[in-house]
Amino acid sequence: MEYRIEKDTMGDVKVPADKYWGAQTERSRNNFKIGPEASMPLEIVKGFAYLKKAAAHTNNQLGVLSDDKKELISKVCDEILEGKHDDQFPLVIWQTGSGTQSNMNVNEVVANRAQEIGGKKIGEERLIHPNDDVNKSQSSNDTFPTGMHIACYKMVLENTIPGIEQLRDTLAKKSKDFEKVVKIGRTHLMDATPLTLGQEFSGYVSQLNHGLKALKNTLEHLSEIALGGTAVGTGINTPEGYAELVAEKIAEFTGLPFKTAENKFEALAAHDAIVESHGALKQIAVSLNKIGNDIRMLASGPRSGIGEIIIPANEPGSSIMPGKVNPTQCEALTMVCAQVMGNDVAITVGGTQGQYELNVFKPVMAANFLQSARLIGDACVSFDENCAVGIEPNKARIQEHLDNSLMLVTALNTKIGYEKAAKIAKTAHENGTRLKDEAVNLGYLTAEEFDEWVRPEEMTGSLKN
Amino acid sequence: MEYRIEKDTMGDVKVPADKYWGAQTERSRNNFKIGPEASMPLEIVKGFAYLKKAAAHTNNQLGVLSDDKKELISKVCDEILEGKHDDQFPLVIWQTGSGTQSNMNVNEVVANRAQEIGGKKIGEERLIHPNDDVNKSQSSNDTFPTGMHIACYKMVLENTIPGIEQLRDTLAKKSKDFEKVVKIGRTHLMDATPLTLGQEFSGYVSQLNHGLKALKNTLEHLSEIALGGTAVGTGINTPEGYAELVAEKIAEFTGLPFKTAENKFEALAAHDAIVESHGALKQIAVSLNKIGNDIRMLASGPRSGIGEIIIPANEPGSSIMPGKVNPTQCEALTMVCAQVMGNDVAITVGGTQGQYELNVFKPVMAANFLQSARLIGDACVSFDENCAVGIEPNKARIQEHLDNSLMLVTALNTKIGYEKAAKIAKTAHENGTRLKDEAVNLGYLTAEEFDEWVRPEEMTGSLKN
Amino acid sequence: MEYRIEKDTMGDVKVPADKYWGAQTERSRNNFKIGPEASMPLEIVKGFAYLKKAAAHTNNQLGVLSDDKKELISKVCDEILEGKHDDQFPLVIWQTGSGTQSNMNVNEVVANRAQEIGGKKIGEERLIHPNDDVNKSQSSNDTFPTGMHIACYKMVLENTIPGIEQLRDTLAKKSKDFEKVVKIGRTHLMDATPLTLGQEFSGYVSQLNHGLKALKNTLEHLSEIALGGTAVGTGINTPEGYAELVAEKIAEFTGLPFKTAENKFEALAAHDAIVESHGALKQIAVSLNKIGNDIRMLASGPRSGIGEIIIPANEPGSSIMPGKVNPTQCEALTMVCAQVMGNDVAITVGGTQGQYELNVFKPVMAANFLQSARLIGDACVSFDENCAVGIEPNKARIQEHLDNSLMLVTALNTKIGYEKAAKIAKTAHENGTRLKDEAVNLGYLTAEEFDEWVRPEEMTGSLKN
Amino acid sequence: MEYRIEKDTMGDVKVPADKYWGAQTERSRNNFKIGPEASMPLEIVKGFAYLKKAAAHTNNQLGVLSDDKKELISKVCDEILEGKHDDQFPLVIWQTGSGTQSNMNVNEVVANRAQEIGGKKIGEERLIHPNDDVNKSQSSNDTFPTGMHIACYKMVLENTIPGIEQLRDTLAKKSKDFEKVVKIGRTHLMDATPLTLGQEFSGYVSQLNHGLKALKNTLEHLSEIALGGTAVGTGINTPEGYAELVAEKIAEFTGLPFKTAENKFEALAAHDAIVESHGALKQIAVSLNKIGNDIRMLASGPRSGIGEIIIPANEPGSSIMPGKVNPTQCEALTMVCAQVMGNDVAITVGGTQGQYELNVFKPVMAANFLQSARLIGDACVSFDENCAVGIEPNKARIQEHLDNSLMLVTALNTKIGYEKAAKIAKTAHENGTRLKDEAVNLGYLTAEEFDEWVRPEEMTGSLKN
Repeated sequence: MEYRIEKDTMGDVKVPADKYWGAQTERSRNNFKIGPEASMPLEIVKGFAYLKKAAAHTNNQLGVLSDDKKELISKVCDEILEGKHDDQFPLVIWQTGSGTQSNMNVNEVVANRAQEIGGKKIGEERLIHPNDDVNKSQSSNDTFPTGMHIACYKMVLENTIPGIEQLRDTLAKKSKDFEKVVKIGRTHLMDATPLTLGQEFSGYVSQLNHGLKALKNTLEHLSEIALGGTAVGTGINTPEGYAELVAEKIAEFTGLPFKTAENKFEALAAHDAIVESHGALKQIAVSLNKIGNDIRMLASGPRSGIGEIIIPANEPGSSIMPGKVNPTQCEALTMVCAQVMGNDVAITVGGTQGQYELNVFKPVMAANFLQSARLIGDACVSFDENCAVGIEPNKARIQEHLDNSLMLVTALNTKIGYEKAAKIAKTAHENGTRLKDEAVNLGYLTAEEFDEWVRPEEMTGSLKN
Repeated sequence: MEYRIEKDTMGDVKVPADKYWGAQTERSRNNFKIGPEASMPLEIVKGFAYLKKAAAHTNNQLGVLSDDKKELISKVCDEILEGKHDDQFPLVIWQTGSGTQSNMNVNEVVANRAQEIGGKKIGEERLIHPNDDVNKSQSSNDTFPTGMHIACYKMVLENTIPGIEQLRDTLAKKSKDFEKVVKIGRTHLMDATPLTLGQEFSGYVSQLNHGLKALKNTLEHLSEIALGGTAVGTGINTPEGYAELVAEKIAEFTGLPFKTAENKFEALAAHDAIVESHGALKQIAVSLNKIGNDIRMLASGPRSGIGEIIIPANEPGSSIMPGKVNPTQCEALTMVCAQVMGNDVAITVGGTQGQYELNVFKPVMAANFLQSARLIGDACVSFDENCAVGIEPNKARIQEHLDNSLMLVTALNTKIGYEKAAKIAKTAHENGTRLKDEAVNLGYLTAEEFDEWVRPEEMTGSLKN
Repeated sequence: MEYRIEKDTMGDVKVPADKYWGAQTERSRNNFKIGPEASMPLEIVKGFAYLKKAAAHTNNQLGVLSDDKKELISKVCDEILEGKHDDQFPLVIWQTGSGTQSNMNVNEVVANRAQEIGGKKIGEERLIHPNDDVNKSQSSNDTFPTGMHIACYKMVLENTIPGIEQLRDTLAKKSKDFEKVVKIGRTHLMDATPLTLGQEFSGYVSQLNHGLKALKNTLEHLSEIALGGTAVGTGINTPEGYAELVAEKIAEFTGLPFKTAENKFEALAAHDAIVESHGALKQIAVSLNKIGNDIRMLASGPRSGIGEIIIPANEPGSSIMPGKVNPTQCEALTMVCAQVMGNDVAITVGGTQGQYELNVFKPVMAANFLQSARLIGDACVSFDENCAVGIEPNKARIQEHLDNSLMLVTALNTKIGYEKAAKIAKTAHENGTRLKDEAVNLGYLTAEEFDEWVRPEEMTGSLKN
Repeated sequence: MEYRIEKDTMGDVKVPADKYWGAQTERSRNNFKIGPEASMPLEIVKGFAYLKKAAAHTNNQLGVLSDDKKELISKVCDEILEGKHDDQFPLVIWQTGSGTQSNMNVNEVVANRAQEIGGKKIGEERLIHPNDDVNKSQSSNDTFPTGMHIACYKMVLENTIPGIEQLRDTLAKKSKDFEKVVKIGRTHLMDATPLTLGQEFSGYVSQLNHGLKALKNTLEHLSEIALGGTAVGTGINTPEGYAELVAEKIAEFTGLPFKTAENKFEALAAHDAIVESHGALKQIAVSLNKIGNDIRMLASGPRSGIGEIIIPANEPGSSIMPGKVNPTQCEALTMVCAQVMGNDVAITVGGTQGQYELNVFKPVMAANFLQSARLIGDACVSFDENCAVGIEPNKARIQEHLDNSLMLVTALNTKIGYEKAAKIAKTAHENGTRLKDEAVNLGYLTAEEFDEWVRPEEMTGSLKN
């Protein structure tokens, strides 16, 4: 492999000749061989591209960066955003906890690629300096949290929320479709009073609606960006008005409502916004786990389970049991939920450990957040398209369960009291008989009264609505 | 010990003669000898007292409960709220997951105590039936979540938020008091550019303000109550209009903005509101852990630590090392944080496992939430009163650190460039000398320029504001 | 209330006149009003009593404590172990993180109670000094971890392991009892090939056996005690040979194989032994959650669930649905599991945060461990006695499910190949018919061959054994 | 792109023409677009290659698979193990929870690649059938857990343990090197009695030794493999003696002590072995977090921190602060610890949710385990090579801290009692003076006595050893 020599304040470093990155990136590659190369999410890199471009524009507008430099920096940033340099970011999550070398990776790639755009060779006199120009008015300490907020916010908005909404909409449609399908309820897994299948699904819709609201509530904190705080939050080496203006530029370039953080000291030293938003992702995982689990239980069988709904058969279910079909989308979904719950703890632990002016668990927090946000969005879409849209009630089975239920006796509480009603249910249970027969046998009411008072469809309350 | 006989639909049970509880409570006492007796929080019991009273008023207003019964039930509920029957609730958290026996415990105590108030003996003909009257228009499945929402909401409002606000206010005052104390910043635990001690504390204030906002954002979900859903969410055995009216009564009696849940199926089968609010408590724990840890590091010493602040000496610090003083309030606070992070996982796990129409992890979720909410409130007050209010800067030490710092060189970046500035710092570090001397030696600038350009107080940016 | 004056190196303190505790305990009571008073587990106090007695004997034997003082200290420690002074330990978990004041609480109670035993009044010239005698050759930093290891080890040995073993034995007996009950298997909640109910239960037994082995593997680390390390692990102020001898005394007094820690620096600064043992408790919680969940699913119904086993009806299951019986022991058990999983995170977080020579999350780690160890033991006994011993198969239901199953077709794989077998199963599923009919219709085999090849009891492999 | 048609029991599927995989793999690719493609760890695939080869040999030896087929299957498995087909396994973690399609992916690749080796084209009459031959005597339900045990066991043995041991050895060497460097101890972050730097490091060594022992204790459970259990644990469709023999083959081919699981029902339905081993990984993360944190605190400065050790300067530490060097290896290490703690919860949650005869959280459990095991090993090596080996004491700083310490007064406890010693320390603290001066001033002892009694190097106890 061919190399060229790059240098930084510590001296010379050999760098692969076909790459734009420089000395500091290469040092980090060599010093942090932990896990697979390039594990730092590209979304972070693109967050950096937005902010580097915004900084160049702001610096220019405030008179501390020339037009030429602004143009060159912007062009490379646009190329990064277009995905033209995805192979130029080889660093891992498990590096310096401020993401310094990922910041420098971007600075170096921008500076070296700018040479080419500007008609120079890498190694010739620099058109753009990685620190003095690309990083102007910035520090790793404020750029990395800014990059991660941009990346996380975009992922939530572009992937997580649409995915959840898509699933929510399908479940809402199913809830409407199934509004007249009266079925047995189950509490403690035991037979209970009836409800409609539509009502059961409405609970899922409500969970997701609450989850979406909770997630959106966290976005304001996440929209605060650290840029302008530089090294420790004081904004050293930034021109007057920089923080507010650079946030406006970022908002403009991303089309998202980013704003400068109320307090830059917090924004560097703590990442509670990440903790907060991921808390909402975890809440949604809790909801999705319930939904996925219910649906696989309702679909269980086909002969010896609950079997009240039918879900699509997407693939052969077993390499040994011929003809088997499994609730595989439920399984993928609930595995994602387990991951998100784990990620929440990783983020929590990282979040607690800021010290003085800096939290140095930034990359691990960002990477876990992005994984959760992506997985939830993707899994909701997958679950929706390959399972939820195809759910149908198994009406015969539902009716059979309903007809057999002893808990219809609850309708009699207000007529004959809890204790007599209990007696009827217990007698039928012991004898393996039906409520009506035992109710009449025990002399508590007539067959006509039973038929009038015990009406499953009225017990659901759904006909009133 | 003397006993009397109580009975339920399963038969006779011996109950201590001096207690109001009945057969089902006693069964639960005997069947669940797990952990210390009476571990079910009293706050839950009082939540029940509010809702039983509200239900009695609502049932009466809707014409399904007599005035006499309403009065009797209300009186006992008021007594419970006054704390007169705290020894009547012996059950544990580790019981049926719907809290059924805790609901019945309240029903039985109200019914038996009502006998006395009504001039009858326990065991004589009932004035009030535990199921048919006290529990009228209710199920454990909707009362327990209602009771836990009341208890949790009140704890957050009455204990958690005031505690956090008290500490926040002290920290804000300190931030103001210390606004001119210029000190060295630290990132990665390493010397960095200066900031004021007031700025450092402002980050803590901002963390708590964001935490308070996040917590308050969750209260709307927590204000939704399940009552009116009864057994499975359909509201079976409730009169028309019951759910809305009973929520109004609860709001009236508690003085808090409770409202009927948008979707009763969710409200029984999932406790995402608990997950959501506790997520905010966990976020606050993350913030408090950072604050407590920073303060103990800043106060470390007295001779061989950082020693930039002085905290109150509250107790002898060591049983073996005479004269030692320790940051004990920081330790109590951060231990609370560890507990809250653990509780968050217990709640998350409980929250995932609802099945069909019911989540049966209600007691464990409620108990963990109440512990967290109480501990955070109490610990903030303790930390505030015994530590934060007494924090003072150790100005001599702060100045010594500032004078020695190499990172003041950062102010030169915009004058002589990053690379020359680095050279100065590295040379001074190697030689154990001061920046100014090496700057001049290296010929990069004059002594006068150094003095003009390197001004710590200006590097904090705080004089502009 | 009456008070007396106690003093320590910081000055005078008013203490309730009827209590033995002294100045430092009272300071802690006042300085840490966090959560309910006296939340520090009594097991820890008793761990202290063992070690204080052992230290007195060792100090005496090594010639640094008089016979009289040894006797007095031992007597009070014995009284504490007998439970005579349970109301003398009012402190909370949320205090100094080394448990210093709990150590002093014991020192003070021993010293003041010794006055009485020795015929003096409290406040008269001391027979025993809390620091110089009771705490001789000790520091809070080595006594608290010793006390917590004693407490945790005893709890595991006396409560957790016997509880798990009791449940394991019952499940093993059931496994044997049910060894001929052939039933349908379920994978992915879907019908699969048959097994016996005994085999199903044997998996639970194996889980608990592995869990017990894992837990016992951790006991060696937990048997290491810190005593002798004193302030920072060097053993300052201890006589030669003290550490080994005091460990022997503790082993003698407790009857348990405690030994001096290999490395005292670790033993003060890290509590990985607690993390390790609790990891095993968490593993057992994972197992118990699976077992509890399986049993409630197998018992679900009675009419519209799986219903293959019958569990005891211990209490009325619903305050609104008459005659309902619920799997309440499963619910208590799985709630305990959720708590243990949460406690594991609290312990993990506490365990990570040792700094230099001391971990100051000792009380929170100890309290969570003791809760988990107690709850698992208690819950296993409760689940065993109130549920597991009474489990019976519902043979009619089991047979019905078995007869209907399509997965018996798997037995044909080795005769006619996976693809033809799949064709049979799919056709029967679509037509709602039985395998045999479709197998013959499709011409793949004869009815006689079907009967010979498809034998559920042989598919379980259980008849060979 | 070119395609060919593959089919399974559900019908035809278009598959990329240049890939070996078949219909079921392709279905899974399309049905589970969740997260990045090919996220299923290759280690799992290789675990499958071992077991498929072992199964082929076993089936052949037991007379149910021809020599030709055995040879063909073995050859492809060897190719997979050599890494020749890494691009043939495109599936994701988030698929069916039994990993069925990853099992089929291997089956299909083996079968189609065997066509080529056997001189046929894919699509021509099969030499090897994916289900009937490659999967013979197997099910996804026993192969996936076997594959994951092989993968996890190998990762622990080949990566995790050597990495930890390498770091442990360096720390042990440093402990020896530093055995005479007397320094101040710190408890509660406050100055305490002295110890040697070697003693401080010996605690880290002891933590890692205990961690290694704990990890090795878990390997026995992990060495149990499920193979032979097939669909539900009964071993349906396996020849007599298969389970034991196939385990022997796997042990032979891997060179590792795998053995057949004691109980196959557990081995399919629960993955407590993964929970158990990962518990040990988490314990090690707890230890490493303490070590990494201590080292960064000890190295903090260079001017205004603790500064008692010097760590290697590996890269420029700041993009804005020239000359800054940061403890980046500590940061990478502790970020890994945070991830492992999170992964532990993901695994715990997955482990709890087995149902009946199968746990369907296998892929998420395996992936998290492998990530933790790899990261710990890699991070230990990185931390060792780029930080630990280069640690040197800053002797001047250490001496300065030692000379100033007030806690040397502890040596006087046994001479003049705790109370007088405390008086000396407090007076010196208040006056900012030295102990000796105040000790003499207070008249408690002479200067000569002070010099004789207060000897830091003796207070460490290290000279005795």
